[in-house]
Amino acid sequence: MATITKKRGNYLEDFEPGQVFRHKGGKTVTEGLFCSFTDFSMTTNPLHKNAEYAKLHGYEGLVVPPGLVMNIVFSQTVEDISENARANLEYINMRFGAPVYVGDTLEAETTIVGVKPSSSNNDRGVVHVSSVGRKQDGSVVIAFERKVQVWKSDFEAAVADAELTEKPQVECTPEIPAYRDGAGYGDSAHLSNSDTYLEDFTAGDVYEHSRGRVVTDEHIPLTGQLDNTSQVHCNQFLIDQNPKKYIGGRLIVYGGVPFNLCLGLSCPDIADNSPADIVYTTGRHVGPVFAGDTVFASTEIREVRDYPGRDDLGVLATTLRGHKFRAPKDGEEGPQKVDIFYLERELAVRRRSHYAR
Amino acid sequence: MATITKKRGNYLEDFEPGQVFRHKGGKTVTEGLFCSFTDFSMTTNPLHKNAEYAKLHGYEGLVVPPGLVMNIVFSQTVEDISENARANLEYINMRFGAPVYVGDTLEAETTIVGVKPSSSNNDRGVVHVSSVGRKQDGSVVIAFERKVQVWKSDFEAAVADAELTEKPQVECTPEIPAYRDGAGYGDSAHLSNSDTYLEDFTAGDVYEHSRGRVVTDEHIPLTGQLDNTSQVHCNQFLIDQNPKKYIGGRLIVYGGVPFNLCLGLSCPDIADNSPADIVYTTGRHVGPVFAGDTVFASTEIREVRDYPGRDDLGVLATTLRGHKFRAPKDGEEGPQKVDIFYLERELAVRRRSHYAR
Amino acid sequence: MATITKKRGNYLEDFEPGQVFRHKGGKTVTEGLFCSFTDFSMTTNPLHKNAEYAKLHGYEGLVVPPGLVMNIVFSQTVEDISENARANLEYINMRFGAPVYVGDTLEAETTIVGVKPSSSNNDRGVVHVSSVGRKQDGSVVIAFERKVQVWKSDFEAAVADAELTEKPQVECTPEIPAYRDGAGYGDSAHLSNSDTYLEDFTAGDVYEHSRGRVVTDEHIPLTGQLDNTSQVHCNQFLIDQNPKKYIGGRLIVYGGVPFNLCLGLSCPDIADNSPADIVYTTGRHVGPVFAGDTVFASTEIREVRDYPGRDDLGVLATTLRGHKFRAPKDGEEGPQKVDIFYLERELAVRRRSHYAR
Repeated sequence: MATITKKRGNYLEDFEPGQVFRHKGGKTVTEGLFCSFTDFSMTTNPLHKNAEYAKLHGYEGLVVPPGLVMNIVFSQTVEDISENARANLEYINMRFGAPVYVGDTLEAETTIVGVKPSSSNNDRGVVHVSSVGRKQDGSVVIAFERKVQVWKSDFEAAVADAELTEKPQVECTPEIPAYRDGAGYGDSAHLSNSDTYLEDFTAGDVYEHSRGRVVTDEHIPLTGQLDNTSQVHCNQFLIDQNPKKYIGGRLIVYGGVPFNLCLGLSCPDIADNSPADIVYTTGRHVGPVFAGDTVFASTEIREVRDYPGRDDLGVLATTLRGHKFRAPKDGEEGPQKVDIFYLERELAVRRRSHYAR
Repeated sequence: MATITKKRGNYLEDFEPGQVFRHKGGKTVTEGLFCSFTDFSMTTNPLHKNAEYAKLHGYEGLVVPPGLVMNIVFSQTVEDISENARANLEYINMRFGAPVYVGDTLEAETTIVGVKPSSSNNDRGVVHVSSVGRKQDGSVVIAFERKVQVWKSDFEAAVADAELTEKPQVECTPEIPAYRDGAGYGDSAHLSNSDTYLEDFTAGDVYEHSRGRVVTDEHIPLTGQLDNTSQVHCNQFLIDQNPKKYIGGRLIVYGGVPFNLCLGLSCPDIADNSPADIVYTTGRHVGPVFAGDTVFASTEIREVRDYPGRDDLGVLATTLRGHKFRAPKDGEEGPQKVDIFYLERELAVRRRSHYAR
Repeated sequence: MATITKKRGNYLEDFEPGQVFRHKGGKTVTEGLFCSFTDFSMTTNPLHKNAEYAKLHGYEGLVVPPGLVMNIVFSQTVEDISENARANLEYINMRFGAPVYVGDTLEAETTIVGVKPSSSNNDRGVVHVSSVGRKQDGSVVIAFERKVQVWKSDFEAAVADAELTEKPQVECTPEIPAYRDGAGYGDSAHLSNSDTYLEDFTAGDVYEHSRGRVVTDEHIPLTGQLDNTSQVHCNQFLIDQNPKKYIGGRLIVYGGVPFNLCLGLSCPDIADNSPADIVYTTGRHVGPVFAGDTVFASTEIREVRDYPGRDDLGVLATTLRGHKFRAPKDGEEGPQKVDIFYLERELAVRRRSHYAR
């Protein structure tokens, strides 16, 4: 007769370069998950709203938006990689591959790329990982690296500073259906914003997206629907027992929620005519979000260029930023803007010349 | 290098009679949207709950309730027509057509019928529109007019008082599956309330529906799931910056939410044996709803009559009213009833003689 | 012209042993309901997450978890049996049968087994019922008894103490797909927790499940999605008019919500490799739950035994307990644990010898 409390997840000393984790669960994308997460994001791209439009553009049906693909796969890696993390430091080279449809089942796998103990604190260190998400036919839907600061369980445990000499190479580029002459794209052109074709963008412009969206405690079931079981998002009692230990002394909103929301808020200005996101070269959460915060976003156009091998498309290299406001402190006037999210994002965008005739 | 803030939507001076808007987006009805909106409404009609019952009654599967059809199509018209509205004044002659099923994709189109600048305020006026929603096979699922009070952007802009000499004519009547002898309807009669056949209703009776339902801040994701991006329903920061500008100084609940809820609350007494709503001749939101309000409804039976060409059905002409309560002011005793919704509604109702044998 | 307020549901004097209620509505399990309720529960069993895994294990697709099957069928019985109840006293001999899939339609039927007026209070008594849930092909998915304390409408009405001499006999045992040699179960073994095979359990052990989950006012739409219309879960105005009449003076969380959540919280330690729940011999809600409470669970292993006729499976007889914490009163130190749920639960569990090779 024993009393057993299992802790799930790994600590810094449990990781070493070259380890491979095949993560638990897997996730079939139901219409329920698709609906609650897609519409929460305020995306306006008809590929994620209108199955007929998606089929006209060569897809099998409603396309799962990149922010939801990322969230589903990322969440599967949480227990093994970051259940005992202090902070998620950086998303790196997050690339998108095969389109994901409602009904697809996604599974995830992670390789440990590097482990670096902190030089100043013996209780933590940084783990560098490479993760890949695949669907039931084996095709890669997303691949990304991330760096995460992880606690040690045994502060005295020796942890070597080590890194793979060669990172795992995963092929992952967007599969965008071919342009078809005579498909009649123009007949559905009214379904997306007419000022978001490649021809409409100029490097250097900054779009301040006009819409904002408050995050309520709906973030708790949203995070649950992703099977992200991290306790700092849903265990109120844990926080209340020791609020000073936790950022803000409150349940913190899982980063994937504002990540997804910033993508959606930018959509009507940037991505309404985008068939796919290509790569997020780097990204990070620069400030926490709590229930009650209203999230806003802006996008800087860094470069407008051709899409290799596709006359009908181009590439936008952008920086997507998220912000919220906080109440003024003594001497400050009015609410103060606080950055919460930073993402270098490249996405494919259609040319008006091919799609709006 | 420019900073760009796009405003979506039109102002009074942008409208003129005869203009046609093919609205953006379109919407495929997922099982997620169906579930959250149908069940939120507290409807009890088994056509919206039980696919086997719906098939027995000649439908292809679960039937999307009229309140959700209305909300999906209405929401698609918001950006073009009422993003810059001060108030939605009236729903007029809202008629229902082909049944809508999960998996159907709805698109919407609006014709401007009239524009009338305010005689007393040079910053606003009324736009009268005629909208129609169709599904992927082209069949009409809903058609309605509405009048909406819209702001001007340029107060000095000249706006003519003008109206189409002939309103668009759209054929839209409910497609109700034929009565089939020997179908065995009686075997499933226990699934709906037995006291809601045509024979049970008497003109002049008023039903005070016994159930109430609080609206929580769930109204924010519900509204988002309809792609209704109006900021007064979801941008808390916007409200907090200038609460006096906004009704109640709070996020206001999108009218489609109490509209849908009043239909649902009335269902066990009125519509449990209704195959379809026919027409809402006029309707309006007579008071605002906020998170925390408990919504109640009542139905007055104005007329009970035959359904043309159908021995098995009849028509109820009703008035559906919604109300809530507010705290008493000085001198008042107890909570005070406040009207929030008014709808003249005609619906088809089955006869016991045909369906409960 | 009359004003009509219909009350739905029965009172103590309306029941007599032998009565059979075929309940209203029925319910098709949509992907929306599946998603919101399954993921809310924090279950980790891949049968409820991953359609490919479910198919590998012989199921047709995503399997509806027992807590949701119970909630759908139970909720259908509420209006006829417990709309006018004071308290749900006990779940008895709740057994599971055919697997339930997304798209299945469930209907419910209840037989009155016994009626027992209170000897000390003339306004109430206990009704003992036997309910069964079936899907569209007629197969039984769940059967259970329960005892519920019901109000009388007319306190003077005579109610006999009566009981059926023989309770309805309903065959209901789990249909667990056969073990198939060479199926390749081991290739998917990483998807579930590796320490939850039958060989891992020892009678007498107690698992304190490490995760907790706050219940927010999301309980209101969750309960609505089950078509459970009981007003004490959703009518804020009703409570506010007379808070002393209601437990806690607040909207009380429907018991099915913590029932489901306790099953889910226990899943990673107990049921990750369980193909089916077999029987809940007895269960009850020993304390109320309100929005804001964080729910925790523990499981005691009472017995580990063979599964009749199946070499590949065993049976765990367990006691599942749910608890929350309340603020300390004078003289108490720290938050005080409060029991909220008790369930004697037997479940089938796979053997490592057969499934993790």
